[in-house]
Amino acid sequence: MVPHLITALTGPINELEQRILESMPAVERWFRLEWMEHTPPFYCSVDVRNAGFKLAPVDTNLYPGGWNNLTPEMLPLAVQAAMAAVEKICPEAKNLLIVPENGKRSSFYLSNIAQLQRIFRMAGLNVRVGSIDPDIKKQTTIQIPHDDPVTLEPVVRGKHRLGLKNFDPCTILLNNDLTAGAPGILEDLHEQYLLPPLHAGWSVRRKSRHFQSYEDVAKRFGKMLGIDPWLVNPLFNRCGELDFAKSEGLDCLRANVDALMAKIRRKYKEYGINEKPFVVVKADYGSEGMGIMTVRDVKDLDQIRDRPKNKPPVVKGGKAITDVIIQEGVLTAERINDAVAEPVVYMMDRYVVGGFYRVHADRGIDENLNAPGAVYVPLAFAESTRLPQPGQKPGASAPNRFYMYGVIGRLAMLAASYELEATDPAAETYD
Amino acid sequence: MVPHLITALTGPINELEQRILESMPAVERWFRLEWMEHTPPFYCSVDVRNAGFKLAPVDTNLYPGGWNNLTPEMLPLAVQAAMAAVEKICPEAKNLLIVPENGKRSSFYLSNIAQLQRIFRMAGLNVRVGSIDPDIKKQTTIQIPHDDPVTLEPVVRGKHRLGLKNFDPCTILLNNDLTAGAPGILEDLHEQYLLPPLHAGWSVRRKSRHFQSYEDVAKRFGKMLGIDPWLVNPLFNRCGELDFAKSEGLDCLRANVDALMAKIRRKYKEYGINEKPFVVVKADYGSEGMGIMTVRDVKDLDQIRDRPKNKPPVVKGGKAITDVIIQEGVLTAERINDAVAEPVVYMMDRYVVGGFYRVHADRGIDENLNAPGAVYVPLAFAESTRLPQPGQKPGASAPNRFYMYGVIGRLAMLAASYELEATDPAAETYD
Repeated sequence: MVPHLITALTGPINELEQRILESMPAVERWFRLEWMEHTPPFYCSVDVRNAGFKLAPVDTNLYPGGWNNLTPEMLPLAVQAAMAAVEKICPEAKNLLIVPENGKRSSFYLSNIAQLQRIFRMAGLNVRVGSIDPDIKKQTTIQIPHDDPVTLEPVVRGKHRLGLKNFDPCTILLNNDLTAGAPGILEDLHEQYLLPPLHAGWSVRRKSRHFQSYEDVAKRFGKMLGIDPWLVNPLFNRCGELDFAKSEGLDCLRANVDALMAKIRRKYKEYGINEKPFVVVKADYGSEGMGIMTVRDVKDLDQIRDRPKNKPPVVKGGKAITDVIIQEGVLTAERINDAVAEPVVYMMDRYVVGGFYRVHADRGIDENLNAPGAVYVPLAFAESTRLPQPGQKPGASAPNRFYMYGVIGRLAMLAASYELEATDPAAETYD
Repeated sequence: MVPHLITALTGPINELEQRILESMPAVERWFRLEWMEHTPPFYCSVDVRNAGFKLAPVDTNLYPGGWNNLTPEMLPLAVQAAMAAVEKICPEAKNLLIVPENGKRSSFYLSNIAQLQRIFRMAGLNVRVGSIDPDIKKQTTIQIPHDDPVTLEPVVRGKHRLGLKNFDPCTILLNNDLTAGAPGILEDLHEQYLLPPLHAGWSVRRKSRHFQSYEDVAKRFGKMLGIDPWLVNPLFNRCGELDFAKSEGLDCLRANVDALMAKIRRKYKEYGINEKPFVVVKADYGSEGMGIMTVRDVKDLDQIRDRPKNKPPVVKGGKAITDVIIQEGVLTAERINDAVAEPVVYMMDRYVVGGFYRVHADRGIDENLNAPGAVYVPLAFAESTRLPQPGQKPGASAPNRFYMYGVIGRLAMLAASYELEATDPAAETYD
């Protein structure tokens, strides 16, 4: 089950891995104490890039799809974590309603929903799938190749509750990232647990805010371990009020790309890294890979200037991009059978429950892999999940590598927790 | 990995299995609510007997050995549960001291210690093994075939703390069942977490009290499910103040065996079971299989009368047995390759983390299998731990069977929790 990994790890990353492995008790204790103060998001997936000299999250998804990529061996871990989460948040729960994305009918996505349904059923809940898609007007069962069928049912909204005909859930699990905004049908559900909360949706969330929180987390983590936080933290800038249709804001973008490139160049010089720096420009909100652009030189931005004015870059739902994050590009040194790969770490409650490699044969080491043509290979979790073997050489063993990935995934999850606290509209009532 | 199971399940057990599977959300919710009120023992193993018509625990061990029998696939579950337990009890912990049995040096037992050390290391703690055996006077590393070596170190006792030279643990995990009584060296450790607490040791615990608590639990569980609690509860009586050396108390034993046999006979009649009832007489405390006697007829007790007076039955440590529990014998209908088998369920915190079959080729279906010659086969946990597949026929699928075993294991764990509350010497201070 262990995928064939080709890594070319040299320099600081081995020191980093060594430091993290040696400090495992301190790291785990640090997370335990953090989780005493902060509530983890209900579930979460994190895209990690391992450049060899640097290891960092590049995207944190609070409505993870792709649960179907977890292997059957990982399922018990997810179920146990789901039990822990339910126990903490809603111990008296019996019925759970999953709200999927609207209109997403690929068998891949529906298989993800089938897997979530399985996980929460096995955790001991009655689970049904309630669609808020206006096109779902009656119970609709969809067959999926190699998986259980999924039955979508139209939701029924009461004054303060959402449910199905003859199904009154105490808990509603969103697997819909609300890119198009939080619909009224999900508002004011004061009698039910809505997980994650509405402000975790992309109508409120901003990647720049997440990576701001992540920077704080990385600084504190770096201080605890005595390492440069840059080794786990992707630098970033942001630009707002762009109008790609009118080429407005290009100057802001150029200036920020330039400034970030210079910062990265300094860091590369400091560590003697002979790679060409690059940045990734992406919409400041939205979970899909659309509108992501790798910029290796400020001149690359001219393609934005030169693109047809009637085809501005959009996020899911067709909304034009007005705010972008310019993120330090992190190379990926991971390969599976010669194809470029990046690990994706899945978490539920505070636990790493599994992961897989996103692999793209047609993409370069500095490109976004979350694009059509990507395939998924389970992480080599078989023997010991994120569990290092004490005494084994860093870099030498797969489990040691995966422990690190789990640490980086949890740092990003913690940043999401900070972020949700900061954006919680109900928070002021506790002051 | 699925062991070849031959079960001959007929009659009520299928109804019971059906009822438990149908009621899974209610069962899980019930457990969640119970664990809000009661603290699970830190860890626990339960011997389960599946008679086909009845499924019941026959022994609950609060200092489980045999962790080495869990497969590598089960390890992540144990680690995750260990993380949850540590998080709840002692989140600020960094160092854990495991205290093993004194004088037990079989590679089997030491492999169990190596496994526990692995689990808690992987959960992020510094783990060392501190022996309270006076024979361990210096650091002693013992090689084990096919496993990591175990290093035993002599404990160092301070005023209110126990540790090793240069190792000050915040938490002490006992894997020593204290049959010989709680030693002074473990008393008054007010500054550290001692897990499980001293009153979980056999110097305080009584099997009859455990099964009294279990009866309460089974009644409430039966009421919730609408089933006869007898289907999951082994009946019992007890006799105290025996003196086997003088044959004293044999009348009490005879009367109790007779009474219990009559009760079982009535139950067998009620359910149309054509098996011969039997009872098991065992010491009311102690974890080892010594001194366990299967009684199929009250005349069998004559072997006690007739045994040499200078060889009275003893428990571990050589203490004569004065109190016995007379427990309804539960046949085991499980077979692995024609050998009689019984499942053993392992739990940590409130989670079922694995299990195995105890298999004995030379024993009958009504005999104790925890005896020399027993071998251990991992439970068929590979695909979905204790996770039933909804819609599959009861009895037909291994996962469905194992869900039931996990339920019974947890009922016994809950009974242990009640029991520990009742015997907690510190409890009165909260009144």
